[in-house]
Amino acid sequence: MLLLSSVLRRHHRHHFRRILKSFSTSQLSDPPPPPSPPPLNLPLSHPTFLVWSSNTSLGKTLVSAGLASSFLLPRPAPPLRRRRFLYLKPLQTGFPSDSDSRFVFRTLSSLSSSSLSPLLASHRVLQTSDPDRVAIVDSDFREEFGGPGAPAELVCETMFAWREAVSPHLAAERESGPVEDSAVLRMLQRRLDCGLYSGVGEEKMDAFCVVETAGGVASPGPSGTLQCDLYRPFRLPAILVGDGRLGGISGTISAYESLKLRGYDIVAVVIEDHGLVNEVPLRSYLRQRVPVLVLPSIPQDPSIDLRKWYDNARGVFDSLVEAMLLAHLERIKRLHEMPKKAGDVIWWPFTQHNLVSEEDVTVIDSRCGENFSVFKVQDDDVITQQFDACASWWTQGPDAALQTELARDMGYAAGRFGHVMFPENVYEPALESAELLLEGAGKGWASRTYFSDNGSTAIEIALKMAFRKFSSDHGILNDNSTERCTQLVVLALTGSYHGDTLGAMEAQAPSSYTGFLQQPWYTGRGLFLDPPTVFLHNNTWNLSLPEGIQLTFSSRNEVFETSRDKSNLAETYSSYISHVLEHYPESKGLIGALIMEPVIQAAGGMLLVDPLFQRVLVNVCRSKNIPVIFDEVFTGFWRLGKESAAELLSCVPDIACFAKLMTGGIIPLAATLATNAVFDSFIGDSKLKALLHGHSYSAHAMGCTAAAKSIKWFKDPQTNSNIVSEGRSLKEMTLADLLCDAGVVGSPLGVSRPVGGSCGVAQKRGHLCDNRKGCLWDEELVYKISSHPAVQRVVALGTLCALELRAEGSNAGYASTYARSLLKKLREDGIYMRPLGNVIYLMCGPCTSSEVCFQVLTKGFSPNSVVSGIDIT
Amino acid sequence: MLLLSSVLRRHHRHHFRRILKSFSTSQLSDPPPPPSPPPLNLPLSHPTFLVWSSNTSLGKTLVSAGLASSFLLPRPAPPLRRRRFLYLKPLQTGFPSDSDSRFVFRTLSSLSSSSLSPLLASHRVLQTSDPDRVAIVDSDFREEFGGPGAPAELVCETMFAWREAVSPHLAAERESGPVEDSAVLRMLQRRLDCGLYSGVGEEKMDAFCVVETAGGVASPGPSGTLQCDLYRPFRLPAILVGDGRLGGISGTISAYESLKLRGYDIVAVVIEDHGLVNEVPLRSYLRQRVPVLVLPSIPQDPSIDLRKWYDNARGVFDSLVEAMLLAHLERIKRLHEMPKKAGDVIWWPFTQHNLVSEEDVTVIDSRCGENFSVFKVQDDDVITQQFDACASWWTQGPDAALQTELARDMGYAAGRFGHVMFPENVYEPALESAELLLEGAGKGWASRTYFSDNGSTAIEIALKMAFRKFSSDHGILNDNSTERCTQLVVLALTGSYHGDTLGAMEAQAPSSYTGFLQQPWYTGRGLFLDPPTVFLHNNTWNLSLPEGIQLTFSSRNEVFETSRDKSNLAETYSSYISHVLEHYPESKGLIGALIMEPVIQAAGGMLLVDPLFQRVLVNVCRSKNIPVIFDEVFTGFWRLGKESAAELLSCVPDIACFAKLMTGGIIPLAATLATNAVFDSFIGDSKLKALLHGHSYSAHAMGCTAAAKSIKWFKDPQTNSNIVSEGRSLKEMTLADLLCDAGVVGSPLGVSRPVGGSCGVAQKRGHLCDNRKGCLWDEELVYKISSHPAVQRVVALGTLCALELRAEGSNAGYASTYARSLLKKLREDGIYMRPLGNVIYLMCGPCTSSEVCFQVLTKGFSPNSVVSGIDIT
Repeated sequence: MLLLSSVLRRHHRHHFRRILKSFSTSQLSDPPPPPSPPPLNLPLSHPTFLVWSSNTSLGKTLVSAGLASSFLLPRPAPPLRRRRFLYLKPLQTGFPSDSDSRFVFRTLSSLSSSSLSPLLASHRVLQTSDPDRVAIVDSDFREEFGGPGAPAELVCETMFAWREAVSPHLAAERESGPVEDSAVLRMLQRRLDCGLYSGVGEEKMDAFCVVETAGGVASPGPSGTLQCDLYRPFRLPAILVGDGRLGGISGTISAYESLKLRGYDIVAVVIEDHGLVNEVPLRSYLRQRVPVLVLPSIPQDPSIDLRKWYDNARGVFDSLVEAMLLAHLERIKRLHEMPKKAGDVIWWPFTQHNLVSEEDVTVIDSRCGENFSVFKVQDDDVITQQFDACASWWTQGPDAALQTELARDMGYAAGRFGHVMFPENVYEPALESAELLLEGAGKGWASRTYFSDNGSTAIEIALKMAFRKFSSDHGILNDNSTERCTQLVVLALTGSYHGDTLGAMEAQAPSSYTGFLQQPWYTGRGLFLDPPTVFLHNNTWNLSLPEGIQLTFSSRNEVFETSRDKSNLAETYSSYISHVLEHYPESKGLIGALIMEPVIQAAGGMLLVDPLFQRVLVNVCRSKNIPVIFDEVFTGFWRLGKESAAELLSCVPDIACFAKLMTGGIIPLAATLATNAVFDSFIGDSKLKALLHGHSYSAHAMGCTAAAKSIKWFKDPQTNSNIVSEGRSLKEMTLADLLCDAGVVGSPLGVSRPVGGSCGVAQKRGHLCDNRKGCLWDEELVYKISSHPAVQRVVALGTLCALELRAEGSNAGYASTYARSLLKKLREDGIYMRPLGNVIYLMCGPCTSSEVCFQVLTKGFSPNSVVSGIDIT
Repeated sequence: MLLLSSVLRRHHRHHFRRILKSFSTSQLSDPPPPPSPPPLNLPLSHPTFLVWSSNTSLGKTLVSAGLASSFLLPRPAPPLRRRRFLYLKPLQTGFPSDSDSRFVFRTLSSLSSSSLSPLLASHRVLQTSDPDRVAIVDSDFREEFGGPGAPAELVCETMFAWREAVSPHLAAERESGPVEDSAVLRMLQRRLDCGLYSGVGEEKMDAFCVVETAGGVASPGPSGTLQCDLYRPFRLPAILVGDGRLGGISGTISAYESLKLRGYDIVAVVIEDHGLVNEVPLRSYLRQRVPVLVLPSIPQDPSIDLRKWYDNARGVFDSLVEAMLLAHLERIKRLHEMPKKAGDVIWWPFTQHNLVSEEDVTVIDSRCGENFSVFKVQDDDVITQQFDACASWWTQGPDAALQTELARDMGYAAGRFGHVMFPENVYEPALESAELLLEGAGKGWASRTYFSDNGSTAIEIALKMAFRKFSSDHGILNDNSTERCTQLVVLALTGSYHGDTLGAMEAQAPSSYTGFLQQPWYTGRGLFLDPPTVFLHNNTWNLSLPEGIQLTFSSRNEVFETSRDKSNLAETYSSYISHVLEHYPESKGLIGALIMEPVIQAAGGMLLVDPLFQRVLVNVCRSKNIPVIFDEVFTGFWRLGKESAAELLSCVPDIACFAKLMTGGIIPLAATLATNAVFDSFIGDSKLKALLHGHSYSAHAMGCTAAAKSIKWFKDPQTNSNIVSEGRSLKEMTLADLLCDAGVVGSPLGVSRPVGGSCGVAQKRGHLCDNRKGCLWDEELVYKISSHPAVQRVVALGTLCALELRAEGSNAGYASTYARSLLKKLREDGIYMRPLGNVIYLMCGPCTSSEVCFQVLTKGFSPNSVVSGIDIT
């Protein structure tokens, strides 16, 4: 651990130096490594707003100065308590001749002089591309006005400044080299902390902050990222300076919509009066819910003293400040009351409300990519970031870029289709996603896509399909028979879970979920086999057979080798399965379907079932004409490093169910894929022979749109840099990769690996160049964890890294609250985890960057955190 | 019928005269009646595009002229076939000094002269606010160039023109009075028809059309509706003229997003070169999928002859025309191949694929409010409009305005939250929608909201809740018992339907849906009672008792009177139910829950169950401590004229299920509401006592956002003009209302009704002033239909108007294909209907305007159409 952490620290230092260097030397450097998430920690004690504008030159800075004057120089009397107004301009071009922070500084200085209201004001520029004024340049660019002791203080800061009066992305390209988004966010975070909290001492102070953006809402920042995307992790409430000119209604509305599409809350719109009463249609569009304020016409002549204008506009700015303060207070109030209200009116799934106190409730203010923004009441109210390590019940896939694209594409689908009826109809999203499913997850075997709403319904549909196929193959009924002559059951594995509806539950073995208390109608219609499982323990991959025999493998990939089909074990499996099937009494029913979760049994405790066993099972069933269902609800779409787990198993089903990650994790949708042979068993002359199952929102346009988008996104190396093997796998992540990514070791990623040094261990295992079974978790650390005494077993595959903690008696199993203290600690550390009893896991998205995976794994599963979080004595 | 049709025609004439009048007299008239939908019928044989711009003055008209020149004056040789370019400018302000169509006309005339390419060009203005040039003014405003026989023809038309150079909504307000959206759309439709198809004769011709918008994408049209909303019913493919200036990246992207949010397809973006390489970030944003073309810098001096510029820009315009033609051809190709592809890869729910030929497949290009836009291959390819009269499996509620707002709000929810984990967490949309549900549909009884994905899962959850409550009330198990000692069954009604999953199916009586062929595991765990039903036949509301006794009512509202509780019938019901319950053998199980669809059994055939019977049933069960579940999946949220059908029944359940219309009909989400007493039976110390059911997307943010929005929208008289009785009911619709609305009869709506004349019948029935049980279908026509010999019974309530056709033997029941020919005919008439066997129905949304309801009812259920559509001999 020590070694790893220090490497990581070194890497970060290196990284940071490189940013500084690139900024100060005007040279284009190598493309930067993927940005690590900014350490978001946003205090809510003082109102902090973004000032956006629908275009350049609409008066953002005039508005900022007006807000400052209204807040700092209140009328008729000076403020009762000390006040500080923090004005931040993260990105300034055209500098030094243009400087918005200087404008605010000078305007307020002038207004303070003429109104005889004492003010302490400062203005400084932190980084500039000017070669004579390199890097942190406080001394060069600092101006001050007034003196200490004034009840009102103005702090104006420009974070990054470039000379040329063009968009920041162009200026950066030409003058400083690109500046990473994370560098901007980190500095913004720091300036907010310093500006609002430093030098306050014991004295109570009211503060107010505005962060003024550059250009329009979607103008690029210095990395090329649009500013509305760049600042999104903070999701600060916003005001929008709109356009009062001819054509301005349109620009204002469009800018508003771009901000809404990214989840921003806009508290007020301000426009300048141009005599066109643009505020009337704007208010009508906003349905009177967002105030539209109108500023008096701004003098065009730059020589005119603006003091008179500010005097005239005073009332508007007072109203604006009031609206902003009110919105801030309402937000805080709502955030505070949400846990109690939730506890009062909501009935959470899978939750014993008696065990959840008000303090346990997580208030999620938003999500951005893999991270929640969570409201916390600590010393102060604060919004902090938590990595969603349970992928919100295994649904999540989007990084921040995909989330934005999905928001826009789903908006498009809603705008174009709303929802439209499916049967006998066709519309683009349904057709496109059906085609993509058959070309992707169903490739080589599936011919038909049946849509439903969630994994559970997809399973019930699959069961109906399989039983019909079986009945028709085995001559159990002709078309006209409706007699209930035969009892059909499934062949399934102990520890499986196929969803919460009764039909899906019937296909699982008795468990904590199936008791009379939970499922009064459950009978367990199946023959349930105990499957052999594979796991990592003490640096070794083990196979645990039900009889208690253990075998070992030299590597995880060996587990998946199809050459094992020729082993003695395969024969043992085969005769065992055949034996059990042949001895199943017909009085209990005919086995009409095999259903299983390929490779990983998720809800059962993240158990890796021996792929050989599952492959043999499929072969035996096929030889007996028993249809095979794969429940890929959890395993599908790269969850395990392949588009489908069937690929990992190297065999195909007759029917497979997909959901969760299928839409990228944004909206419920499920699909049951089937072969033409299955489909044909529903074909006939009567509607009564058709599959009479279908939910109202079958193949809803928004869900299908999201599915089509996500399926393409995840497998395209252009959008998912984790994709290797010509789009067939997620890459295998090792420390070596990380160092390659970060440029510490020069080998190109995924082609050859570095040798020696800290990568020696990985090299020794000798299978790292085999990229066929990808995993995003650092292998070395995973091995290390597997030998910790508190850890019973580890499974790491694709986006999943799970471990079972040693536990006995009531500490084991689903009802265990064993990991509770660990979870609490991790959430404080910025990792949102949710256990399966004494099984804990980390899950990322298919696109999650290697750096983030590494950080999460280091934080979440370092032996230290596991040990300190759990009392294993 | 004759009478009704002629009234309707008269009304339309009147209406049209009023529009013309208002346009030509510059006087503000009374607020116009709700617009009727335009008769959308858009031929696809020639490419037709909208030209949008992100702001005014970016060169839309230059681009239009460039497209015309590229298309009409191809180089090096003239076109082989005749060509026509239709340029339409629907809205022109600043006229006559500004006239974009004149600019296009003159530019092309000049380019044709200088290139010696023969051209026939014309330019005219159809309607102008100029008082000297009233209404249709072809002669005054027509200009022509060239002569007949030229291989290329340019037709330039301005539809509406105002003098002042301001936004059309202001100009219209000041000069002509508002012009309705429907008037603009109707004229646009007509101009497209005439311009592209008239005078063509036998000769083959290539045509191309652009419709140039005014100002920016979201600039208001003459009624105040934003243009991107105004033109939405046509959903023409578009090109966007973006902004190459400083700040222009942002404006272009935002305009693009506003168009996408409304479901438009943008084929290309064009910007003028200002030396800022704005195309680079634009291409990156568009991920190279939409071409971004750059025009040479446009001369600023208006005296400069633009011919040289057009020469330089020629290559760009050629590429643009090519991209547009290609997009058009690809669209047509895809639309053509979709039915076959769908038939190949999709497995439709509730569909016997054998009975669906390629020609039967409806290709839905989009939906706007209540209407589908459907692609049809007739003589020519065409997009036509169909009213979605089955409300897409009873889900639909949005009018066009709500659809747009939902698209934006769902985009916001996706941008802000994506999806986040629910248990033990709280986030705004989940909390807000839970609160709204408890204050609305659950008011007065429900205390907890349990979210799931669809009606079926909501029902399974409800069953689990009810059985637990029953078990705990009746001491069947203590916390530790898991014995399956007791068989629990439901009390339910024959003809009910509660969803497609097995648990939900078990709660319904044996039916066509439950045979072994469909549900191999179905056993029917219930005591099923035959309910008495109410229906309209031959002008009379009848009660049909299972024994064959029929009673009649003086009006439908009498059916719902709670005073019936004191009738002998109530006593008869009560003792019947008690008797049946008491004689149900315990060996078959204990009755642990009552489950029923309040008021209307939907899938069962739109049966109106006697409300008195249901009320008595609830009371009897309550007296025996049997929990009561209302399945409001179909009936909830104004489907029957009240927010919940429980209100109609005048009694409350312990548990109720909602879905479908809950989100306004845009996305799947369901809720099971319950009392605190039900909730308490899950409280304990162990997680195993909790309700262990929960789908991955439980309470997903987009669904909850849509639900919160729609719940508020439907009951707010500001957004739903059908709401009366202080937000408690949908209004009762009669011909009298319609005439009131249209201003033909002067009485204010809903206060008093006109007497005499054609309204005499309604008046005679004497209960029309009672608004408590609303219905949007014209009562007089409904009564008339009920006496048609082909019609067995009619039920009209809220948004539902259903009728059962007389049928015998195999023509009756769900499998009947009896109504197929009627459906075909109706779809040709613009009504998309889907039968339940021999039961056919019309369904509108809670906000559908009275005019539209009237038109749909007249078209859909006029005795003529019913008779001609069905061969009843």
